[in-house]
Amino acid sequence: MTHFRDEDTLVREIARQLSRFAGDGVRLGVGDDAAIWKPKPGFETILTSDWFLEGSHFLRDKHPADAVGWKCLARATSDIAAMGGEPRCFLLNLALPAVCTEKWLTGFLAGVRHASRFLRCALAGGDTTRSERISISVTVVGEIAAGRAILRIGARPGDLLYVSGTLGEAELGLRLLRKGRGMARSSDRALHKHLYPEPRIALGRWLARRGLASAMMDLSDGLSSDLPRLCRASGVGAKIELGKLPVLRGLNMKQAQLVALHGGDDYELLFAVPPPKAATLPEKFRELRLTQIGQLRAERRIQVVDEDGTAKALTAAGWDPFRQD
Amino acid sequence: MTHFRDEDTLVREIARQLSRFAGDGVRLGVGDDAAIWKPKPGFETILTSDWFLEGSHFLRDKHPADAVGWKCLARATSDIAAMGGEPRCFLLNLALPAVCTEKWLTGFLAGVRHASRFLRCALAGGDTTRSERISISVTVVGEIAAGRAILRIGARPGDLLYVSGTLGEAELGLRLLRKGRGMARSSDRALHKHLYPEPRIALGRWLARRGLASAMMDLSDGLSSDLPRLCRASGVGAKIELGKLPVLRGLNMKQAQLVALHGGDDYELLFAVPPPKAATLPEKFRELRLTQIGQLRAERRIQVVDEDGTAKALTAAGWDPFRQD
Repeated sequence: MTHFRDEDTLVREIARQLSRFAGDGVRLGVGDDAAIWKPKPGFETILTSDWFLEGSHFLRDKHPADAVGWKCLARATSDIAAMGGEPRCFLLNLALPAVCTEKWLTGFLAGVRHASRFLRCALAGGDTTRSERISISVTVVGEIAAGRAILRIGARPGDLLYVSGTLGEAELGLRLLRKGRGMARSSDRALHKHLYPEPRIALGRWLARRGLASAMMDLSDGLSSDLPRLCRASGVGAKIELGKLPVLRGLNMKQAQLVALHGGDDYELLFAVPPPKAATLPEKFRELRLTQIGQLRAERRIQVVDEDGTAKALTAAGWDPFRQD
Repeated sequence: MTHFRDEDTLVREIARQLSRFAGDGVRLGVGDDAAIWKPKPGFETILTSDWFLEGSHFLRDKHPADAVGWKCLARATSDIAAMGGEPRCFLLNLALPAVCTEKWLTGFLAGVRHASRFLRCALAGGDTTRSERISISVTVVGEIAAGRAILRIGARPGDLLYVSGTLGEAELGLRLLRKGRGMARSSDRALHKHLYPEPRIALGRWLARRGLASAMMDLSDGLSSDLPRLCRASGVGAKIELGKLPVLRGLNMKQAQLVALHGGDDYELLFAVPPPKAATLPEKFRELRLTQIGQLRAERRIQVVDEDGTAKALTAAGWDPFRQD
């Protein structure tokens, strides 16, 4: 890749690297003042926008550039999965130090390109500028059949609470990355999940089409931070059972439960299912485990019941950029 | 405003300050994983996303917080105007130092709120996090009758080239701001235009509805940087006449012409009109002057003709964050 003399050349290079396919519904992509998008008839548009900032969300000397590219798109797309929708296109805002416009940018764009193909989500526009630290803001556009989106609002007392996959894996990966020297290599499974998370699009879509979930969100900051958000939106409380959490193997049980409760970045789905529908829910969706971890209730507290049957209040200890420790 | 203990409180405060009205077509706003949007039947959605970064686009000690709020939304909305569309809603990504979560944030949100009302563009979502410098990324969603958007592509040789308003005013305002000590006060008209630009939504919409313009864009980086983009997209060249530029009064003519050619941030519209339609174009649209500044031609060069009739190549000297001076 050549060194960029100006912004127009940079924009053209990004478009060349990423515009390998046109997204369904994208009427006009990169190159004009704005993009034009039209959902299928009978569908609504889902919009979400996420930060991915050097220092806060990744470290330039630890996270491979292609993982930064993959993850910035994957995590924004996870919000589309969390509504039961399908991603269609994205806008990429990229602010870079001049020193990152060559090798780093090549790696980054390769990661965005792989995620873009894997997620079937096409580049439609964005903005580039220069800055001292790498700043990324990704807006993802998805669609869903009108009225079919699964919101956070809609859960009722008595609904059973489920999560997909395993909890705490990405947090363990982050710890491995912090301990390691230099750039991370993703041969470890937990590290791989931290670097290249896969939003649960197929599961979310399936739950929305079947009308199985009364409320849903993705787990980005950790169960102990995210569950209270779902409960607050629905005006309910919850009781979860520590012994039921789909924890990591290979750690001692106490540690595994702690990272499952508080670890962030898993991008698994948390969803509520009314009891009559829960009977129809399989143990696995494709290869992905679905685990009932507790139940919602009218009393607005959130409690964790340990193996002895002792109930304690759940304290939010997931990731929060503004919390003062 | 209280000091923020956590991100959820900050998000609720932003929503409280900004969610004074629901945008047309916004089915679900702040508070869930993503927003849901549906354009009117027969309309397409316009999507644009822009940076507004401390150090690059504004200075914390010079630009009043409410001007930062106004301008970050206004300039992103200008891209909707540049297609002939109408803004509907926006996503606000805000990364702040902890020290800015009180007084600065209050001023900033007041500016965003004023722009949001003035532009009829409602907050629909976004993301907040902490960072060392203030970073803002704004995504604006607009709509336009299907097939009616005015693109950059589409101008033909022979089309007449027009601009709205006066060119160079915002650049002059920026110079006043740089010269001044401490926080800028916007009593000066040029400074006001730099701080509180007004995207030309009504003009863009009118041109699109009447089908008058063959191509259009907004002037954000300056005529000498932006005109080549329109010409490249349409595969044409242009000849503009220095004496016809709608320059500022009160400067000497040479200076006024230079800032009109190269000054950025005016957010006026640049548009091409086929000659038969040009006859129907008024001199003013409402209070806004429309000035014919030149003509497009098949030969792909861009030239400026001075008052003596001498033609020179136009050199791009507008704002470019990657240009190395």
